Amino acid sequence: MVNTISGGFEGEIYPVNPRGGTIAGRKVYRSVAEIPAEIDLAVVTIPAPAVAALMPEFRKKGIRNMLLISSGFGETGKDGKQLERELVKAARQAGVLVLGPNTMGISNPHIQLYCTGSPVIPQPGSTAMVAQSGNMGIQLLAFAEQQGIGIRAFCGSGNEAMMTIEDYLDGFEVDSLTRTVILYVESIKNGRRFFESARRVGKKKPIVLLKGGQTKAGKRAAQSHTGAMTSDTRIFNAVCRQAGIIKVERPMDLLDLAAAFSSLPLPAGNRVAIMTLGGGWGVVTADLCAEFNLDVPDLTPELISKLDRLLPSYWSRSNPIDLVGERDTSLPMTVVEELMKWDGCDAVINLGIMGRRIMVKRFGQFVLKADSKYSAEFIDQLNRQFLEFEETYIQHIVKLMDRYRKPIFGVSILPDEKNQTLYRVGDSPFKGVFYPTPERAVQAYAKMVEYQHFLDRP
Amino acid sequence: MVNTISGGFEGEIYPVNPRGGTIAGRKVYRSVAEIPAEIDLAVVTIPAPAVAALMPEFRKKGIRNMLLISSGFGETGKDGKQLERELVKAARQAGVLVLGPNTMGISNPHIQLYCTGSPVIPQPGSTAMVAQSGNMGIQLLAFAEQQGIGIRAFCGSGNEAMMTIEDYLDGFEVDSLTRTVILYVESIKNGRRFFESARRVGKKKPIVLLKGGQTKAGKRAAQSHTGAMTSDTRIFNAVCRQAGIIKVERPMDLLDLAAAFSSLPLPAGNRVAIMTLGGGWGVVTADLCAEFNLDVPDLTPELISKLDRLLPSYWSRSNPIDLVGERDTSLPMTVVEELMKWDGCDAVINLGIMGRRIMVKRFGQFVLKADSKYSAEFIDQLNRQFLEFEETYIQHIVKLMDRYRKPIFGVSILPDEKNQTLYRVGDSPFKGVFYPTPERAVQAYAKMVEYQHFLDRP
Repeated sequence: MVNTISGGFEGEIYPVNPRGGTIAGRKVYRSVAEIPAEIDLAVVTIPAPAVAALMPEFRKKGIRNMLLISSGFGETGKDGKQLERELVKAARQAGVLVLGPNTMGISNPHIQLYCTGSPVIPQPGSTAMVAQSGNMGIQLLAFAEQQGIGIRAFCGSGNEAMMTIEDYLDGFEVDSLTRTVILYVESIKNGRRFFESARRVGKKKPIVLLKGGQTKAGKRAAQSHTGAMTSDTRIFNAVCRQAGIIKVERPMDLLDLAAAFSSLPLPAGNRVAIMTLGGGWGVVTADLCAEFNLDVPDLTPELISKLDRLLPSYWSRSNPIDLVGERDTSLPMTVVEELMKWDGCDAVINLGIMGRRIMVKRFGQFVLKADSKYSAEFIDQLNRQFLEFEETYIQHIVKLMDRYRKPIFGVSILPDEKNQTLYRVGDSPFKGVFYPTPERAVQAYAKMVEYQHFLDRP
Repeated sequence: MVNTISGGFEGEIYPVNPRGGTIAGRKVYRSVAEIPAEIDLAVVTIPAPAVAALMPEFRKKGIRNMLLISSGFGETGKDGKQLERELVKAARQAGVLVLGPNTMGISNPHIQLYCTGSPVIPQPGSTAMVAQSGNMGIQLLAFAEQQGIGIRAFCGSGNEAMMTIEDYLDGFEVDSLTRTVILYVESIKNGRRFFESARRVGKKKPIVLLKGGQTKAGKRAAQSHTGAMTSDTRIFNAVCRQAGIIKVERPMDLLDLAAAFSSLPLPAGNRVAIMTLGGGWGVVTADLCAEFNLDVPDLTPELISKLDRLLPSYWSRSNPIDLVGERDTSLPMTVVEELMKWDGCDAVINLGIMGRRIMVKRFGQFVLKADSKYSAEFIDQLNRQFLEFEETYIQHIVKLMDRYRKPIFGVSILPDEKNQTLYRVGDSPFKGVFYPTPERAVQAYAKMVEYQHFLDRP
């Protein structure tokens, strides 16, 4: 409740406990019947055996939705499973929809509803997320908050006694605020329905999925955790491919793809131009592109002669385009624009423009320490210049993406204090995306190409 | 020079420029001859064509070592290659050892020598690093600094006109401060010598290597960057395996392995016990272990009955061991100790103990906002408790590693403000290692097992 209150939820919150009194400065109602208002959602945390008895009260009060946080149901074994079945029956009779039990909660940043067991408050955004593990969900939300990835809505689906992952999927299909769907799945109750929904939803918005329990060790862990019976991994993978689900193998990949799909135009193909501030980083990125089946095409003579006019005489004349450490800040702005205009590539990866301010700041401190000739004001001004440049650069690339409809994948020199990945610019549907390492940028691009292929399929 | 001065180098620094005057408050000498002291290292940044002419002066002054930062040599083409050959000849005649040219510099944190083009100041430590790309080297150093990974010495080897990567390798073999060697390689001049050295050094200390230019796209990039002629990737990989070199495919893997090898005891085998604060994270980690050929063994009845006395009745009784969100801070301390004592595992992965303070801090802010009953002092105390707990926990696991000689791989709930990976405790050779994601912990463990296998080979 603390998280829900402090999160700034826009609606009213009514605590209920038979003992009454006050909590967090609010009157505690002895029962839902006493509450002088209609209730949209009941959040229940009382011990498992007592929950079913609430259902007639809820019916009388007209409560239609229950978020059931309490554990002690199906996940504990045979008796718990029986208790869960009885609860579902009672809820059905009372016309109450059950989310849970055994869930970490839900959140909807668009109305500042943060009703989760842990205090995570991501920004509102377009990524909808369902996790069949509360702790995985909370982890992902916490990372999303750090990285600036906006969340449409989150739900830890718990034991899925009534509402299942298939239901959420159908909901996201029609929800206009959802642009990307992120799923952490351990087991699926109705495989046919899930994959049919996924295939339909996937044609409208990408579904990115991480499967827990893919190996013997993981399966055993999942069974003891949610009682999940998992399926054959090869069959599961084949059906995912068929349904256009973007499958990933690492938790962080979910967020990297949430950032990409929610913030960048879809690439038309796999040809990438790489712009770098230094050689080695470019070499490694070119290797990674090849590994992920991305094409790093040769530059055309026309483009080379355009760039000849911008870059020092000894520039590489090949892709990756190395800006050879030039400090002129207008250079990356102009070069990235030429690459966006170039019809020889479908996307741009740019390495090392963002995050320079972190190095410049450090350099300023060093200069002040080493040489009394420089004033703190001068250094402050230098820092401001680089900070402003980064803002200008982000605005610039967002404008270019608006115009040319190609994605730009950024890689920062260093993660900043906030570990931010996404940078918003006004109301554009596109955002600046800067990953901390080239491998994450390359993989995000490759997965976007995979999704584009699915859309192209008849 | 600014970086070297501000880095706090313990020796003397003498600026030299024919025009004289002062710089950064120091007298500028018109030539090396004027300097009233013996010189250990000349750092040269003058234009390429003028460098060879310095050699007789250096000889007269008794300067034996030159760090040649200047570019404009072999990397620029045929003329540059000729210039480089002439320089090497002149240097040989004058008895001057050349490091470079075209390098980002060197650093030795043990004497606070930070002589690099960018202001990165990692802590002193036991990881020696050579990069055949200055910008890759600087990136890695900057990440190492953020993550708290200590550096024995760094060198951007540049064009390797005289000193080559094989020479550095031989040096690290006999250097008692070096425990781990990290290499970023684009090309090797003398393959036979390199692999013979590597095999010899590798028996004493692990060598971790990232190869740039492994694909057609990457090779082309490497050629335009350092003029490197790269070799066949399959042959290269086979020889690496033969020589016991730990090959990685992502830049960040270099640092993750530097952290592991420099801070943890080598595991005797691949059997891992996983201790987690939540189900899903444990499931995913078990999957990752299987993917990397690590074994997640069943718990023995003896261990289960020991843990029965510590954990709530409904605990999973299987590996991963889920502490089911219990808030009692002594619990992870006791459980991790039982796992270290258990002869059924060779290593422990622990998920989610570290970083709880970040969540607790947020929770405290929420409580204060929601409920005036709580005082700021109470919340401060709570924060202090969790901060102290993490310190105690790190001390505890380091002591356990000292005693039982098994590695403990930690995974934080969230990266902290500093993105730290390594936590030092007194003078122990071991340290607390906490990665931000399970995949990085699992991969580090798998690579340590690979190295142990190499050592076991006759």
